[in-house]
Amino acid sequence: MTTPHNPDCIFCKLIDGIIPSHKIYEDENTIAFLDVGPITNGHTLLIPKAHYQTIDQLPQDLAANSLKLIPKIAKALKLATDSPGLNILQNNHTIAGQVVKHVHFHLIPRTQDDNFKFTWPSQDLPTPQALQLLKEIKENLED
Amino acid sequence: MTTPHNPDCIFCKLIDGIIPSHKIYEDENTIAFLDVGPITNGHTLLIPKAHYQTIDQLPQDLAANSLKLIPKIAKALKLATDSPGLNILQNNHTIAGQVVKHVHFHLIPRTQDDNFKFTWPSQDLPTPQALQLLKEIKENLED
Repeated sequence: MTTPHNPDCIFCKLIDGIIPSHKIYEDENTIAFLDVGPITNGHTLLIPKAHYQTIDQLPQDLAANSLKLIPKIAKALKLATDSPGLNILQNNHTIAGQVVKHVHFHLIPRTQDDNFKFTWPSQDLPTPQALQLLKEIKENLED
Repeated sequence: MTTPHNPDCIFCKLIDGIIPSHKIYEDENTIAFLDVGPITNGHTLLIPKAHYQTIDQLPQDLAANSLKLIPKIAKALKLATDSPGLNILQNNHTIAGQVVKHVHFHLIPRTQDDNFKFTWPSQDLPTPQALQLLKEIKENLED
């Protein structure tokens, strides 16, 4: 069993084989499987086996192990679904759309007529505001 | 200069310092900087320095080098902006919302009243369809 592990987590149960899934890929650290409620054809989830709720909690080595597989899985999805585009989306906390509280990356192949849409409310970033923000972010960036 | 490199690419120019940016982080392989047209406060881009247009083209070792930094940057953004959530979004090809043709990950801190929204048109996935899809994806999964 990979640790940390949460016996009440649906993805931990899926990793343990207690809940079935359509697995695309599996290794020691990572699993990828078809989303049971796909928003487009081929919608896949890639997850680290270790149970961390949000991406900021995931240790760097585990992030490397799992996320290095995104290109490989994305390529297979694009080819298999003959898709002209693909989004990768990862949601943290309910406000951002996270439902299952175990880090997961959505790989979402796109087609011209699909119903996945997002807004892009781009704003200006005045230099004084940028410099203040930069200062605050750097103060919170751990070595 | 990191290779591959595209002298016409705005992000390659930014990496080279020809175009200025508000840099949060930089190492040999990766740079993170504030988006010039943020959709929320703290909206940041994390990019591999090597010029690849879409995520499926990015070599696995470069993906590991760059994407392992997502947790660290995400944590700093959440703390600096006191954000209750965060989305990570990566768009491939115009149909998926990609504008600059150099792989980039959006880190988007969220607030209760922001204007970043996405639809979630979840569908059923009947088992026969899932099995056929799984077969096609696995056939396209390179070793």
